[in-house]
Amino acid sequence: MPQTVQTVDLAHTSGLYYGPATISSGRVLHISGQPGNTKDAHVPSDYESQIHLCLFNLRKLIIAAGADIKDIAKLNVYIVDYDAKNRKHARPIQRFFGKHRPAQTLVPVPKLAVPEWLIEIDAVVALPDQPSAPMLPAVAECVDVVIIGGGLAGLTAAHEVIRAGLSCIVLEARDRVGGKTWSLPTADGKGTIDVGAAWINDTNQSRIYALAKRYGAEVIVQNTTGTAVLEDFDGSVKPFPYGELQDFGEATTKSVAEIRDMCEADCQAVDTWLPKDTTLDSLTFEAYLRSRGATKTAIGTATVWTRAMLGLEPSEVSALYFLNYCKSGGGLLQMRSDRKDGGQYLRIRGGTQTFAKGLAASLPPGIVRLESAVQTIVQVNDGRSVKVQSNGIVYSARKVISTIPGPALKNITFYPPLPPVKRAWSESLYYGYYTKAMMEFKKPFWVERGFCGLAQSFIGPAGVIRDSSIPQDKQYVLTCFMGGDPGRVWAGLSTPEREEALLKQLSKLYGVSTLEEQFIRMTAYEWVHDEFAGLGCPCTSLPPGVLDSLGGDGLRAPTGNLHFAGTETAGEWKGYMEGAVRSGERAASEVVGELKGPVTARL
Amino acid sequence: MPQTVQTVDLAHTSGLYYGPATISSGRVLHISGQPGNTKDAHVPSDYESQIHLCLFNLRKLIIAAGADIKDIAKLNVYIVDYDAKNRKHARPIQRFFGKHRPAQTLVPVPKLAVPEWLIEIDAVVALPDQPSAPMLPAVAECVDVVIIGGGLAGLTAAHEVIRAGLSCIVLEARDRVGGKTWSLPTADGKGTIDVGAAWINDTNQSRIYALAKRYGAEVIVQNTTGTAVLEDFDGSVKPFPYGELQDFGEATTKSVAEIRDMCEADCQAVDTWLPKDTTLDSLTFEAYLRSRGATKTAIGTATVWTRAMLGLEPSEVSALYFLNYCKSGGGLLQMRSDRKDGGQYLRIRGGTQTFAKGLAASLPPGIVRLESAVQTIVQVNDGRSVKVQSNGIVYSARKVISTIPGPALKNITFYPPLPPVKRAWSESLYYGYYTKAMMEFKKPFWVERGFCGLAQSFIGPAGVIRDSSIPQDKQYVLTCFMGGDPGRVWAGLSTPEREEALLKQLSKLYGVSTLEEQFIRMTAYEWVHDEFAGLGCPCTSLPPGVLDSLGGDGLRAPTGNLHFAGTETAGEWKGYMEGAVRSGERAASEVVGELKGPVTARL
Repeated sequence: MPQTVQTVDLAHTSGLYYGPATISSGRVLHISGQPGNTKDAHVPSDYESQIHLCLFNLRKLIIAAGADIKDIAKLNVYIVDYDAKNRKHARPIQRFFGKHRPAQTLVPVPKLAVPEWLIEIDAVVALPDQPSAPMLPAVAECVDVVIIGGGLAGLTAAHEVIRAGLSCIVLEARDRVGGKTWSLPTADGKGTIDVGAAWINDTNQSRIYALAKRYGAEVIVQNTTGTAVLEDFDGSVKPFPYGELQDFGEATTKSVAEIRDMCEADCQAVDTWLPKDTTLDSLTFEAYLRSRGATKTAIGTATVWTRAMLGLEPSEVSALYFLNYCKSGGGLLQMRSDRKDGGQYLRIRGGTQTFAKGLAASLPPGIVRLESAVQTIVQVNDGRSVKVQSNGIVYSARKVISTIPGPALKNITFYPPLPPVKRAWSESLYYGYYTKAMMEFKKPFWVERGFCGLAQSFIGPAGVIRDSSIPQDKQYVLTCFMGGDPGRVWAGLSTPEREEALLKQLSKLYGVSTLEEQFIRMTAYEWVHDEFAGLGCPCTSLPPGVLDSLGGDGLRAPTGNLHFAGTETAGEWKGYMEGAVRSGERAASEVVGELKGPVTARL
Repeated sequence: MPQTVQTVDLAHTSGLYYGPATISSGRVLHISGQPGNTKDAHVPSDYESQIHLCLFNLRKLIIAAGADIKDIAKLNVYIVDYDAKNRKHARPIQRFFGKHRPAQTLVPVPKLAVPEWLIEIDAVVALPDQPSAPMLPAVAECVDVVIIGGGLAGLTAAHEVIRAGLSCIVLEARDRVGGKTWSLPTADGKGTIDVGAAWINDTNQSRIYALAKRYGAEVIVQNTTGTAVLEDFDGSVKPFPYGELQDFGEATTKSVAEIRDMCEADCQAVDTWLPKDTTLDSLTFEAYLRSRGATKTAIGTATVWTRAMLGLEPSEVSALYFLNYCKSGGGLLQMRSDRKDGGQYLRIRGGTQTFAKGLAASLPPGIVRLESAVQTIVQVNDGRSVKVQSNGIVYSARKVISTIPGPALKNITFYPPLPPVKRAWSESLYYGYYTKAMMEFKKPFWVERGFCGLAQSFIGPAGVIRDSSIPQDKQYVLTCFMGGDPGRVWAGLSTPEREEALLKQLSKLYGVSTLEEQFIRMTAYEWVHDEFAGLGCPCTSLPPGVLDSLGGDGLRAPTGNLHFAGTETAGEWKGYMEGAVRSGERAASEVVGELKGPVTARL
């Protein structure tokens, strides 16, 4: 597509997240000042929540006009009571821009049109030409269903489609199946380390546990015997019994418990399939906590949650989205639990990629096509077929199931373009910073000292640490979760510095001074650089405003003959393998229902 | 070139320096808010200095994008602590616009993105189409060097080129040689009056003095015998001995002396060929004086300097530029001195145009072509020749030397366009208001009363007055220098009113009540309306930021086969005839060196 906006730089300006100037061509979209309100003009009193709402309002107009973020030529940002020392607007706007660098002017103002408004943004956008239908080569192969993505969602869907007697192929971009499950060998080559999804349970995660049984996976119960530790804001280390609250002193501990219980109660009230609560969705999770009187320590605790679960600061995610995310795993406490029924109860001795490998191997031959990234999807205007192009080969299908993460949809050209609601949904999804580093040691020194291995830190680099050893294999591993701001700082280090920083933290947390001698190797895979994952993991999030404005099922809803799966579309266990499997079943059921259902249903 | 921006006016709006609306077409350049900082993000605390830096930052982006001031469609000016009674932004912006009148909105704001920023400007600019190579008629004549401008720089260069055995022509736009030296007859037709450059010396101005000797010019020593006078802010007239400081009372006089000595010391520290000092260049000369604690009287004194030397208020010129300008003449004191070694030591009885006439007459015939303004210069892309078009005639040359003032470069279409640094330099150059009025009298009444003729005034209309009589010819003249703000006020008068205003001032300064009877005639030429001089004299100036951002030799540096001379490019005696001659020698030496130098130098 021809470039509509081009950034002009001088010698010293290329480091700015916006451009000193841009050149636009063609028709121009002029956007009125957009405040940070919901679609019903509700204005949260919180400034950061308003920033997110404001940007989403801008995004909706840009999409409605047929343009894209990359077409923005100029942004004017009007801020009330602007504080140069606390530039809260910069990160959300930078994330909104992505790699695009439009021109920008910040104008501090004494007030705006409505007293409650704290930020307003207007924009000039260069409209791209209406896309024309891509010219595709002749169809090489016809199937009932093309499934995009050979992860757990896609492979599960393939099994369901085949089981219904329909034909399908699975187009997988990578040279392996498994998507965000990926099991790599340990240093000695004898064990496995899961650089992606790692935990399941055997009760409410029935689908994935069924796969574990079907493919003979040996499960390991997560170690919760022993003491857990907390690293406080001041760096002090406090042991606490696993499963209980840390002792912050009576008043603080009570306030943390209250906030935890409030979050639990509020998330239980959410309908995970169709979350709807304008007030909760108008606030960031942090603003929600503050509005309920959360103390610094309570917010610190909640920050450990968002960093370890989504790689985000609490100020970066909609309160409704976060509570709904928790609800999808049965609630905050259950999703965070390492015990029976909890999200981190069992690990897989041979690695979780066992599931995808088993699923793929048990499909008829020729169905899974590796190294087959999809470039183009054309919904033919007879309404009965879809053409999918991958590496110059065109497949024709009656239905397509995309299982790729929302942000990765940008890698595909859709014709006609995806409808505005779908675009607004998928383009609003984003990942935080989230990396797991698996630290292999010669001995489980923490166990020897009475620790279960679980640690939480308010300061990082790791926000959460879990034992992921496989004692039968003499494999002793601590998995360190780096998420959010401390994760971003850690990501800026070289590999030796990263190792050193983690060893230093572990050494302090478990009171061991000679860790270097015990240390074997650090294994980490940075999903933030993985194009096919949509540049992140484990699951995307939404800022305030999207759920409320677009409804809770906008990402999941089919578009013509295009259906959507993947763990982020799941109603249960979003971000988990269980959610991926269930989403694959659900999408397959939609497709099978439509292709095999009574003819009258289509009239 | 087709118009990209057109001003829309209503009946009552044509008097505005900006337009109420504009129409733009084509591609659009959107410029982010530009603050008043240096290229290293240094922000002077002075508001006026920031205005100049801000506009220069805007200019750089406009040029970088391939546009021009005339392409500006809209400007938004954001000002902190805006004072409607003291609209300091208006004049610099008006000068920046020139005759172009874009749309503009002024937005007073409580603060800007960075606490130190006091002004920020963003803009919308309509981009012109990329220019294509002009279609030129066939080449009529080939020479080694085409020299543009038949003033002292161009004629000197021609002599040097010829002496090196190369061929050249001099294309002069006017119907005379001499450029900004121009000698007109006195009222009786017997004497001459220099309406342009008038003074030389016989020591450190060796090149021009050599011309004086070569062409038999009779020199007249400037009269410094007798008392000088000062007109103070309150209009009171105070005599003082020539060469000494005026008596403002002990404390004030001391403060004036300190500021003068500080300027002298600071200008001596500047490298006149490559001036570099980020702090000095970030400030206007006035802000520099204020930052050093200059009193009102000291600033008044400094204002006399900038008005009489450059036609500017101290708030209109970079401190570094002004100090460097002084340094080029040996320092503030020497450049301002009317005595031996000083800038105003000797005059020429037959007028200073004698030099140019002598130089032109001693060239081989046919070299100087009068009334030959250049319209187009095309650097042919073989890198070996330049085509110069004047009045439909095309000359081909191996080298071109332009001696025209920076602002006059706009009258020529260059292909390819001049590079951004050259454009930013030349387009930033501007003249202040500066007119000399030569008042002829029947008798030297001031001499008869014991005055040397030198007067200085804080209030004007004339800021400086000098005796420029030629007693041998019974020609009694006071040259009144109107510069800066009082000059602009005087320029708004009719000719009889101008005469009356000056006679009134002279009458007061020298205590003579019957001046009308003595008065013969006023002779003045307004260089501010002279297109070929670039609409001003004696020399262009730069606002803050340019020298620091572009380096000190950006105007002088050649561009391909295009070389640059003229007094403003001189390292010594900028703005003086000496500087013009030396610049012509320097440019000729560049050209001769490249055309006659060893072949290896070009490989």
